[in-house]
Amino acid sequence: MVFAPEVEAARAAGQPIVALESTIITHGMPFPQNVETARLVEAEVRAHGATPATIAILDGTLHIGLTDAQLDHLGQLKDVMKVSRADMPVCIAMGRNGATTVAATMIAAHLAGIKVFATGGIGGVHRGAETSYDISADLPELAQTPVTVVCAGAKAILDLPKTFEYLETLGVPVIAFGQDNLPAFWSRDSGIKAPLRMDDAADIARAAQMRAAMGLPGGQLVANPIPLEAEITADILAPHIAAALAEADQGFIAAKAVTPFLLQRLFELTDGASLVANIALVMNNARLAARIAAAHH
Amino acid sequence: MVFAPEVEAARAAGQPIVALESTIITHGMPFPQNVETARLVEAEVRAHGATPATIAILDGTLHIGLTDAQLDHLGQLKDVMKVSRADMPVCIAMGRNGATTVAATMIAAHLAGIKVFATGGIGGVHRGAETSYDISADLPELAQTPVTVVCAGAKAILDLPKTFEYLETLGVPVIAFGQDNLPAFWSRDSGIKAPLRMDDAADIARAAQMRAAMGLPGGQLVANPIPLEAEITADILAPHIAAALAEADQGFIAAKAVTPFLLQRLFELTDGASLVANIALVMNNARLAARIAAAHH
Amino acid sequence: MVFAPEVEAARAAGQPIVALESTIITHGMPFPQNVETARLVEAEVRAHGATPATIAILDGTLHIGLTDAQLDHLGQLKDVMKVSRADMPVCIAMGRNGATTVAATMIAAHLAGIKVFATGGIGGVHRGAETSYDISADLPELAQTPVTVVCAGAKAILDLPKTFEYLETLGVPVIAFGQDNLPAFWSRDSGIKAPLRMDDAADIARAAQMRAAMGLPGGQLVANPIPLEAEITADILAPHIAAALAEADQGFIAAKAVTPFLLQRLFELTDGASLVANIALVMNNARLAARIAAAHH
Ligand SMILES: [Mn+2]
Ligand SMILES: [Mn+2]
Ligand SMILES: [Mn+2]
Repeated sequence: MVFAPEVEAARAAGQPIVALESTIITHGMPFPQNVETARLVEAEVRAHGATPATIAILDGTLHIGLTDAQLDHLGQLKDVMKVSRADMPVCIAMGRNGATTVAATMIAAHLAGIKVFATGGIGGVHRGAETSYDISADLPELAQTPVTVVCAGAKAILDLPKTFEYLETLGVPVIAFGQDNLPAFWSRDSGIKAPLRMDDAADIARAAQMRAAMGLPGGQLVANPIPLEAEITADILAPHIAAALAEADQGFIAAKAVTPFLLQRLFELTDGASLVANIALVMNNARLAARIAAAHH
Repeated sequence: MVFAPEVEAARAAGQPIVALESTIITHGMPFPQNVETARLVEAEVRAHGATPATIAILDGTLHIGLTDAQLDHLGQLKDVMKVSRADMPVCIAMGRNGATTVAATMIAAHLAGIKVFATGGIGGVHRGAETSYDISADLPELAQTPVTVVCAGAKAILDLPKTFEYLETLGVPVIAFGQDNLPAFWSRDSGIKAPLRMDDAADIARAAQMRAAMGLPGGQLVANPIPLEAEITADILAPHIAAALAEADQGFIAAKAVTPFLLQRLFELTDGASLVANIALVMNNARLAARIAAAHH
Repeated sequence: MVFAPEVEAARAAGQPIVALESTIITHGMPFPQNVETARLVEAEVRAHGATPATIAILDGTLHIGLTDAQLDHLGQLKDVMKVSRADMPVCIAMGRNGATTVAATMIAAHLAGIKVFATGGIGGVHRGAETSYDISADLPELAQTPVTVVCAGAKAILDLPKTFEYLETLGVPVIAFGQDNLPAFWSRDSGIKAPLRMDDAADIARAAQMRAAMGLPGGQLVANPIPLEAEITADILAPHIAAALAEADQGFIAAKAVTPFLLQRLFELTDGASLVANIALVMNNARLAARIAAAHH
C-alpha cells in the first residue's frame, strides 16, 4: 500500500481525507475526459477542506491517492481489471492493474484509515434479479466495512425497491440527505421513503462514530440528491429506461453487457444529459463527503 | 449503556439474566395493557429464577433493564423509533427514544453480556418476498450475534418454509423444543420438520457454549411451542390468514403497513384470541428462557 | 479436537496438509466402497506430497484425520448426522457422530490451521430457489472461512448461473483452473465464463496468502475440470438431468429428498458412469489440492 505524497501529508497532519473510486476513470468515460473529470472531482474535495485519495491498483501495488502522472497513466491503460472484493487480492498478488469498484474502494479506504468515500451511484439489485440473482457485491460490503459512502442513490437502471430492502435486511443505515424520500441517481425523488433522514454532515459523522463505538461492523450509505439544476426528472427518465431495457431484451444483450449497454443508450436517448448529470452529482457528493470527513475531526 | 439496579445486582452476583424486547410495548399493544403485560412477563422471568432486563433507548441512552417508572414512561411515549441494527447507533447518537426489535435487542444483550432473550415471534421472510425482497434483519442478526433467542416460531403471517431455508443457509441452529416439528407461533405445529430438537434447557445452553468455544459467531433460535390450552390450531388460523391477506391485497395496503394491518385483522377475525395467545406464548418463552439462562451458570 | 498421528506428525514437521470431507463416506456411497474410495483419495494426496486429514465427529470429538480403524468404523456407522455450520457445535456438545459437509469441513480445517481442502462438488443454489429459497450453507461459508476449496464445480443438478452470481455478491473468488470457462462437475465446460482463471497452483496459494494479509475473511473456490477421459459431456448429461428432474416433480419428491433422488437416478440413467466420474474428479481435485498445499510452504 503506497500513499500519494498529498495523502501522506494529510495523514501526518491529521486532516480530513475523502476516498474516490477509479472504475469511473477506466470503465466510465473515454480518455481524456475521464482524467479531466477525475481532476475536477479531486479539486472539489480540496476546495471543501479535505484531501482526495483516488484508489487504484497499479502493477499489483495498492495506491491510496494518485499523483498527476499516475492518474494520467491510469486513464489511458488498457485491460484494467474491474476489481471488487473477490478479485482484489488476486489483482495485487498477480501484479496486475485494477480499478476499484465501490466495494473494493471501501476495503482500501478502511485499510488506509479513511472514513468517508464519495462516488456517483452504488451497485445494487438488478432488475430481473428474481431469476438472475444478479446483485452487486457493493451491498454486502456496506454491511461489513466501516466507511460512509456518499452517493446519489443506487444507479437508476437497478431495481431500487429491492436494493433498499436488501440493505435493510443486512442492517445498513440508509440516510437521505436533506429530504424525506430517497433520491434516484439522476432524479431527486425515487418515491421511496428513506429509512433515515439527516440534514447535517456532523450528524452523519456522529452516527458513524457511534456505530464504531458500539462494535457494530459496516458502514453507512448517504443518498445525496442530485442538484436541482442538473436533475433529469423521473417522468423524463422513466420512458428512456423502459426503452433501453426493451432494446436490451430484444437485442439479446447478455448478463455482464447489460449495464454498459443501458448506460450508453441512456446517454444517447437523453442527448448526453445523463453524462452531464453524472458529473454534477459526483461533484455534489464530493462536497458533502468533504464536509462529513471534516466533521469526523 | 445504563443498567437498571436489579440487573446491576444480578450481574454483580453472577445470577442469570433474560433480555426482553420493547417493540411489543411501543408498537404491539395500547397503554396501559402494554405495560401490564410487560410486567407480567418480567414477573414470570423472576418467578423462574432469572432477572428480566427489558431493553430500550431513552433520550439516546441504551437501557439494560427499565425501572418501574421508565417502563411506565416508555409505554406512553409517542414517536418512538422502531430500532433495528441499521438505526440503533443513529437513535443513540441523535438522542432519541427507541424500542428495540429482535435484532437490536440481541445486539444490546450481547453488549451487556446477556446470553438469553425471550420474545414472542421473530421476523422472517415475508410472503411474496420472491418479488418484494422483504426479509427481516432479525435473520442475519441470528447468524452473527451470540444470543439464544427463545420464541414461538416466526410470526405466522410470514412465509415459514422460506424463513427456515434462509436460516439454514446462514448456518443458524434452529431448535424445536420438546417436539420434532417446528411450531408456527399461534399453532403448535407448522408441519415443517425441525433441523434440530432438544428437550432440555441444559442442552440448549451447552450447545451455545460449544458454539462460542469453537469461535463460531451467531446465536441460536429456540422455537418453543405455544401451550396447548392457548393454541389456535392451524386449521382455524389458515382461513383467517388467507382472508386477511386477500383484504390487504384488495385494499392496496402498502409495504410497511401490511404487517400491522394483518395483525389487527387477525385480532378481529379471531375475536381477540390472537392477543390472548400472544400473551400466553410470551409467558411460556419467558419461563424457558429463564431455565436456559440458569443452565448457563 | 484430536489430530490423527499422521496429521500431528505433518503439523510438527511443518509439512503440507489437505483436508477431506466425510459426508461422501457416510451419505455418498455404500460400505465398503465408501471406505475404499476414501483410502484411494487419501493415498492420492500422499502420492502428491501432502498429508490427508479426513474430518469427522466421532462420539462428540472432532477428528482431524482418521486412523484406518476409525475410517472403517465411520464407513459402517448408522444415524450419522450430516453436519453443517448450524449443527456442528450441537453434534459435538451432544456427543454424537457427525459427517462434515463442505461448510463444516472448512470450519474444522480452519480451526486446525489447514489451508486447503479437496472435495467433489460444493453445494449451491438449487433449481427452483426463486420460490424454495433452498441455498446451501456452503456458499456463505466460503465468504467467511479462510480455506481454499478445490472442487469440480458446483454439483450439476444445481442452478449454476445463480450459484456463481451468489458467490460474486458475497465477494468469493471463483477460480477456474487451466481454462477460461467454469467446469460443471461431471462436464468440463459449463458455458459460463469464470470470473478468474489461474494455471498454476502457486498463484492460487499466493492469492490466498494476499487475502489473509489484507485482513479479508473468507476462502477461495477453485473449480478444477474433471479429467477429459472421465468426463460426461453436457450434451449427454443434460437430457438425463431433465428426465430426473421431471421424475422428481411427477413423483412429488419432497425438499430434502430431491438431491439424493436425483443423484441416484443419474447413477442409473448414466449406467453408473456418474459414480466413475465422481471418483475420477475427486482424485483429480486431491492432486491439485496437494500441489496448492505444498505451494503454501
Ligand atoms: Mn453482478
Ligand atoms: Mn422489511
Ligand atoms: Mn438446503
